[in-house]
Amino acid sequence: MTAPKPAVILVRPQLGENIGKAARAMGNFGLDDLRLVAPRDGWPNPDALPSAAGADWIIEGARVFASVEDAIADCEIVYATTARRRDMVKPVLTAKAAGAEMAGAGKAGRRTALLFGAEAAGLSNDETVLATRIVTIPCNPDFSSFNLAQAVLLLGYEWFLAAHDGGTPNFTAEIEEAPRAELVGFLEQLEDELDRSGFLLPIEKRPQMVRNIRNIFTRLPLALQEVRTLRGIVTALAVYGRSRDKTSE
Amino acid sequence: MTAPKPAVILVRPQLGENIGKAARAMGNFGLDDLRLVAPRDGWPNPDALPSAAGADWIIEGARVFASVEDAIADCEIVYATTARRRDMVKPVLTAKAAGAEMAGAGKAGRRTALLFGAEAAGLSNDETVLATRIVTIPCNPDFSSFNLAQAVLLLGYEWFLAAHDGGTPNFTAEIEEAPRAELVGFLEQLEDELDRSGFLLPIEKRPQMVRNIRNIFTRLPLALQEVRTLRGIVTALAVYGRSRDKTSE
Repeated sequence: MTAPKPAVILVRPQLGENIGKAARAMGNFGLDDLRLVAPRDGWPNPDALPSAAGADWIIEGARVFASVEDAIADCEIVYATTARRRDMVKPVLTAKAAGAEMAGAGKAGRRTALLFGAEAAGLSNDETVLATRIVTIPCNPDFSSFNLAQAVLLLGYEWFLAAHDGGTPNFTAEIEEAPRAELVGFLEQLEDELDRSGFLLPIEKRPQMVRNIRNIFTRLPLALQEVRTLRGIVTALAVYGRSRDKTSE
Repeated sequence: MTAPKPAVILVRPQLGENIGKAARAMGNFGLDDLRLVAPRDGWPNPDALPSAAGADWIIEGARVFASVEDAIADCEIVYATTARRRDMVKPVLTAKAAGAEMAGAGKAGRRTALLFGAEAAGLSNDETVLATRIVTIPCNPDFSSFNLAQAVLLLGYEWFLAAHDGGTPNFTAEIEEAPRAELVGFLEQLEDELDRSGFLLPIEKRPQMVRNIRNIFTRLPLALQEVRTLRGIVTALAVYGRSRDKTSE
């Protein structure tokens, strides 16, 4: 049995476009259980699919319910997302804390659901009171209104991170660093050419200058090919410099 | 001196609507330094302000640059956001790690910038190579394309959390819990009425039944007014029950 993922319940959503964008955000984080409570323009809505940007399976699998009570019937823990303070005695969690709790509940086989209110009005108090907890997204208190799909995105993101041990990049640079011998070889070549050019004079300052130059390159992760490129650069510059010296002789 | 906040640099953005939505996302997390590199439809763009949903100061303060080089000129650490692996030896960070690093750099007075590519094409390799680091958002690897404004939102969010010590809810329920004496008073009243009704029989099972009932109410944070409501409920039910008993006599 796989761990149940949070259901995303949009309560009285108005624009099909926003339903589509919410579905896209769900897809970005691997959520697929979309539930619509009394969508204003009925369902299916022709504006939803184009906005889902490819998350067709979520739009096509969406289920419609007449009430929040029906939509949450099979869930154990329900989170009401809201930007407003309610006169309601109910635990208030951050998005991160809710993400962690939902991921933990899922691993224990428990069903959770996230409630999102309509675009402008949000959830009513009668809908909010059905939730186990209130979730809010920490943000600029002077500008705290989120687009519906963006609220879905942030909650989906926090669930995803928690369910995947903090999340890892989908790719890495996979730097295969050059052996240090190659790097030292380059440094010695560089210093040799700089000695010839007179750059490392006066001689009493040479040790510090060499350390400074070495420190530029040793703190970088450098691939073997990059070290070879650097060697080529030094050779090219030094050869050019010597040829110019000859020309000017 | 306040800590510098990350600049948000949109490179060759196409739709004014997306610029507006990116500005709104910036406003949600207190960012305000918006820079546009060669916006396709010029600047100002009449579609931007309506989509900013009130983040007018960000749109009005946006600055236009001819190139990424110009846009990042005053920055020390530049992050290229990308969903694609590049053949480029450069550190790859998650959004969270980048948020933490940007917040730390800001506290040290260092200027950072986030580069976002055009809607469909993203950043070119020649633009990406100008960045200090690559940032990527952990997500469903099979559905990893983010809308421009949503990528701005998630990076802004992680910076905000890191800059505000993990973020706290903008409001709390501020439960002022009832003194335990009030709760115990309610429980004793309930048990008294249940004794009268015969609910707690047989007597040898009474201790366990009482513990079970007490455990329902003691693990809840209950406000004083809620305890009073519960007492009223018990009284109302008991009085109604006794009156019905009399009627049926």
